[in-house]
Amino acid sequence: MTKVAIIMGSTSDLPVMQEAVDILKEFNIEVEVDIVSAHRTPDKLFDYGKNAHTRGISVIIAGAGGAAHLPGMIASLSPLPVIGVPVKSSNSIDGWDSILSILQMPGGVPVATVALNGAKNAGILAVQIIGASDNAVLDKIIAYKERLKTKVEEGAKKMKENN
Amino acid sequence: MTKVAIIMGSTSDLPVMQEAVDILKEFNIEVEVDIVSAHRTPDKLFDYGKNAHTRGISVIIAGAGGAAHLPGMIASLSPLPVIGVPVKSSNSIDGWDSILSILQMPGGVPVATVALNGAKNAGILAVQIIGASDNAVLDKIIAYKERLKTKVEEGAKKMKENN
Amino acid sequence: MTKVAIIMGSTSDLPVMQEAVDILKEFNIEVEVDIVSAHRTPDKLFDYGKNAHTRGISVIIAGAGGAAHLPGMIASLSPLPVIGVPVKSSNSIDGWDSILSILQMPGGVPVATVALNGAKNAGILAVQIIGASDNAVLDKIIAYKERLKTKVEEGAKKMKENN
Amino acid sequence: MTKVAIIMGSTSDLPVMQEAVDILKEFNIEVEVDIVSAHRTPDKLFDYGKNAHTRGISVIIAGAGGAAHLPGMIASLSPLPVIGVPVKSSNSIDGWDSILSILQMPGGVPVATVALNGAKNAGILAVQIIGASDNAVLDKIIAYKERLKTKVEEGAKKMKENN
Amino acid sequence: MTKVAIIMGSTSDLPVMQEAVDILKEFNIEVEVDIVSAHRTPDKLFDYGKNAHTRGISVIIAGAGGAAHLPGMIASLSPLPVIGVPVKSSNSIDGWDSILSILQMPGGVPVATVALNGAKNAGILAVQIIGASDNAVLDKIIAYKERLKTKVEEGAKKMKENN
Amino acid sequence: MTKVAIIMGSTSDLPVMQEAVDILKEFNIEVEVDIVSAHRTPDKLFDYGKNAHTRGISVIIAGAGGAAHLPGMIASLSPLPVIGVPVKSSNSIDGWDSILSILQMPGGVPVATVALNGAKNAGILAVQIIGASDNAVLDKIIAYKERLKTKVEEGAKKMKENN
Amino acid sequence: MTKVAIIMGSTSDLPVMQEAVDILKEFNIEVEVDIVSAHRTPDKLFDYGKNAHTRGISVIIAGAGGAAHLPGMIASLSPLPVIGVPVKSSNSIDGWDSILSILQMPGGVPVATVALNGAKNAGILAVQIIGASDNAVLDKIIAYKERLKTKVEEGAKKMKENN
Amino acid sequence: MTKVAIIMGSTSDLPVMQEAVDILKEFNIEVEVDIVSAHRTPDKLFDYGKNAHTRGISVIIAGAGGAAHLPGMIASLSPLPVIGVPVKSSNSIDGWDSILSILQMPGGVPVATVALNGAKNAGILAVQIIGASDNAVLDKIIAYKERLKTKVEEGAKKMKENN
Repeated sequence: MTKVAIIMGSTSDLPVMQEAVDILKEFNIEVEVDIVSAHRTPDKLFDYGKNAHTRGISVIIAGAGGAAHLPGMIASLSPLPVIGVPVKSSNSIDGWDSILSILQMPGGVPVATVALNGAKNAGILAVQIIGASDNAVLDKIIAYKERLKTKVEEGAKKMKENN
Repeated sequence: MTKVAIIMGSTSDLPVMQEAVDILKEFNIEVEVDIVSAHRTPDKLFDYGKNAHTRGISVIIAGAGGAAHLPGMIASLSPLPVIGVPVKSSNSIDGWDSILSILQMPGGVPVATVALNGAKNAGILAVQIIGASDNAVLDKIIAYKERLKTKVEEGAKKMKENN
Repeated sequence: MTKVAIIMGSTSDLPVMQEAVDILKEFNIEVEVDIVSAHRTPDKLFDYGKNAHTRGISVIIAGAGGAAHLPGMIASLSPLPVIGVPVKSSNSIDGWDSILSILQMPGGVPVATVALNGAKNAGILAVQIIGASDNAVLDKIIAYKERLKTKVEEGAKKMKENN
Repeated sequence: MTKVAIIMGSTSDLPVMQEAVDILKEFNIEVEVDIVSAHRTPDKLFDYGKNAHTRGISVIIAGAGGAAHLPGMIASLSPLPVIGVPVKSSNSIDGWDSILSILQMPGGVPVATVALNGAKNAGILAVQIIGASDNAVLDKIIAYKERLKTKVEEGAKKMKENN
Repeated sequence: MTKVAIIMGSTSDLPVMQEAVDILKEFNIEVEVDIVSAHRTPDKLFDYGKNAHTRGISVIIAGAGGAAHLPGMIASLSPLPVIGVPVKSSNSIDGWDSILSILQMPGGVPVATVALNGAKNAGILAVQIIGASDNAVLDKIIAYKERLKTKVEEGAKKMKENN
Repeated sequence: MTKVAIIMGSTSDLPVMQEAVDILKEFNIEVEVDIVSAHRTPDKLFDYGKNAHTRGISVIIAGAGGAAHLPGMIASLSPLPVIGVPVKSSNSIDGWDSILSILQMPGGVPVATVALNGAKNAGILAVQIIGASDNAVLDKIIAYKERLKTKVEEGAKKMKENN
Repeated sequence: MTKVAIIMGSTSDLPVMQEAVDILKEFNIEVEVDIVSAHRTPDKLFDYGKNAHTRGISVIIAGAGGAAHLPGMIASLSPLPVIGVPVKSSNSIDGWDSILSILQMPGGVPVATVALNGAKNAGILAVQIIGASDNAVLDKIIAYKERLKTKVEEGAKKMKENN
Repeated sequence: MTKVAIIMGSTSDLPVMQEAVDILKEFNIEVEVDIVSAHRTPDKLFDYGKNAHTRGISVIIAGAGGAAHLPGMIASLSPLPVIGVPVKSSNSIDGWDSILSILQMPGGVPVATVALNGAKNAGILAVQIIGASDNAVLDKIIAYKERLKTKVEEGAKKMKENN
């Protein structure tokens, strides 16, 4: 069965990254969560990046803040699609450093970057990547989009009743 | 066979987006290219977004500049993974508008954003997404990464000879 | 009677957008309020944008935050003047994404953008647009400007008394 | 007949602002063009702002760059809707000063801001404002949008033929 | 006797601008404080700017936030040196709009801009301007700088005792 | 006779700073020009800052780019009013570093900052500072403002003739 | 014995700079702490910068915020390596002014800049500089990096147990 | 003998980084130059970072642009002081991405960052680091600073002669 890896540079990123875990579980995708620090555990980074695709993982979600090198280094080491989540950590300058150091990868080594603190969307994107070759998962995405729509319509209805 | 769609907001985006076409052809991925303007051809946008997944497309790459709504609107309409390329078009403020209006999507509707003018990386990411469920394509990515490495090593060698 | 439509991407935008509702009611302009999410209710977006001008609406005010596509997409679909309110929502990067993704529209499809969270000014601008062809409304704007002046003068007076 | 005023802070803004003149003429709207410098001709600014609505003008388009005070000061003085065009003049810092000093007006005094150098869109917005109460003009806007669409479709067709 | 005028766009700017009042009183400079809103009391703005130099004022300090036009418009109308204080008001985008709309004046019409919320420095600069032609005041500035130095030295001493 | 000192961090700043020299000569103000590098000639900086007011100088204009410390350090050392010109030098990041390192001085030590590359305005501001206590100079400023107005009016006239 | 000097522009910088003191003490490096204000105690700045290398100091760490001239001026005066800590002080614009006025030094006079509020890293960098010629200190750095790794691994372990 | 390593992410960084080579040669410091791409040659990165200190290198200068991970990853792997040079490469957004992804390192792993394209200063900083424990090199730095001063003084002299 397809597995998605969710890694982050520090335990302090967990409150943000938990949203990726939750949405993937909602879609019944198997998840593996770990702390991999590009700057403090470079050996683990190397092992992780080089071997992820050999043990059933098909997408890697990597979150980090500040000079956020984890997503890009994993993308350097792994042939898998890597989704980067810029985290607005306490040492970040309003998130700009997190975004730019994840987004602006050189030609040849992409990171699929989502919005600042957008871990939920990272999870959904991972599901969509799986759904690209799995019609059952694609159908779940279509159903998920229906639920999003319904929720907005209910909000609109409630607002009109209150006005 | 899996197909990747490459769309852009204007013919003026073609010089940037051509890199996505080229790299996908290099990987022997079937490509479909079109102009879809969110602001000038909204009906086409709607049809395109709603039906792409029904005719064999598995990944959509969308490039646009300025207030770049094409990638996000396609992601709104399609269940497929959408890769967004912020184009530094002539009406863009150093690319910041292109980046932020593609990257900062709300919860539920991700766009996999790549670097400014990073159409080549959008193409590689599309290949990686296909490779997530296709080992033959994954192997091609591994070989591609080897070629990147070799090219850098040759550059290093040449530089040392010249010094 | 002329009607102004006020739409927003999410119920969370209502506290900001309410100021537009209030000022329009102050001017006795008929108002219609709704939630229209470009990314979660694209069908409603399309219907709304295409038909607003056919049912007595003459100006549309659209507020959204982050990658804010609602104002621009409504401007794509409707021939009416569209006023965009960049909302500094919780997922926005200090409002820059909201501003740039509303303001930087391509040639041919303008959005009349007001200040960050400037829903009150969006309302006044809508009144001014109506006043451009209706002298009674224009006179109300002139009177409103008088009241602004008086309020500043009273503040100045009070400050001088306190010093 | 309804008239649109187009003013700018300096003759050096004319190459940008000419696009507003041209598009309004294309729509057969009567146009009045003038140089009004908030910082060098304050008396003219005052007269202009106070009297424009008394001589048949219904919309004012004002373009300026750098610390661009012209649009906001005209909006202070006139009850008419004012469209501001941030000009990326030679003394501007990549246009950010022009945008922020036009867009960020205080509550009570809106300026309808368009994109950086977006004079063409300022013209179209003026037409839309007139069209808000004039169905013949509204129909012209609808036709204009059709022409935009056709042009994109022709570009798409040509691109496909060339590929 | 020389007088310094301190004006601001809104009573909400007073907490910031009070520092200018206080420091000028500390130097025994006569001060005149008023609210002058460029956007809500344009007639007062015009009278104030045109006549300040005729009634004993030699320097004008003007504070404003957001699209801050007050300092520049006063500089347009008055031959006196104008000191601008960018105020980080509630409607400002982290102060960038306030700074740029005060600082980036066109050639011919300078505003002596101080730091964001730097009203105290505006007051000191006004004293220095008076001191440029008045040796008694210059001596007071020299003494003031000595006091600044002493205060830092005392802080340094205390810190070393505590360590 | 009153003298204005114009200093800059490098000979490469001269093309920008020359405008300050020229405008002061136009007003018949005596000018002294020198290169004083805060980072390469700190002893000269010290002597210059400490002694300028003892040899007939009443205003100092200091221009620098990048991490521009010259204006602030001169303001630290001299009791005179210091006007800072942020220069967009080749090593500057679009001028932002030049502006912020001159503008954002701490409480107690102001620098009167003008626009990026605004050396002409620095010169005019110096004249206005002298005019604050010298009616003959004030009258020259009033006349200068008249000439600015006339030039704009002539430009407006010419533009109307050409249209 | 080698000594590291830690100086800062104001006592208000101490809470940030204390981290540099603490980490150096952890490495048993002798530390000297002082307040040196470039703008309020320029004489002390000059003495400090000119003489530090003559009394056993081998590295200087300088922290400051806003228009932060202390690190660059010390680098101007001293031949020693100077590490600059941009402090996000209360008068700073989100830290951008602090960073740019420390980082963007002209050719010939470097400041080794660390992250915003990165005083801890300034301390570690000072240790590394000492370690560049002292193998015992280098070994301590290697051991420190091991401790960083262990701490991350423990955090990862705990997180997995909790999930 | 002490050696300085100069590495960069791409041969396209060489024109900028050559200034570091040149200045170090001017100081007679032995230099080793290589291309090490964090994203394309991760194995080389790993070997290089882990072993540099074992073969006589005492300082590493690393230059890169865009999402510039090389300096930070080398600092992760090596106990030596690492100097980072943000390169304004063609894929960089005005250098902001290069700066932030090098500067904003997390606690524990510093990179001594110099100005954008500041390779010359990186070289001088490396000399200063060597000079921190080597008086002969320190004396060379003192002499170098004298030459900087002389060059400015000659420029000042020439400018005065020309005026």
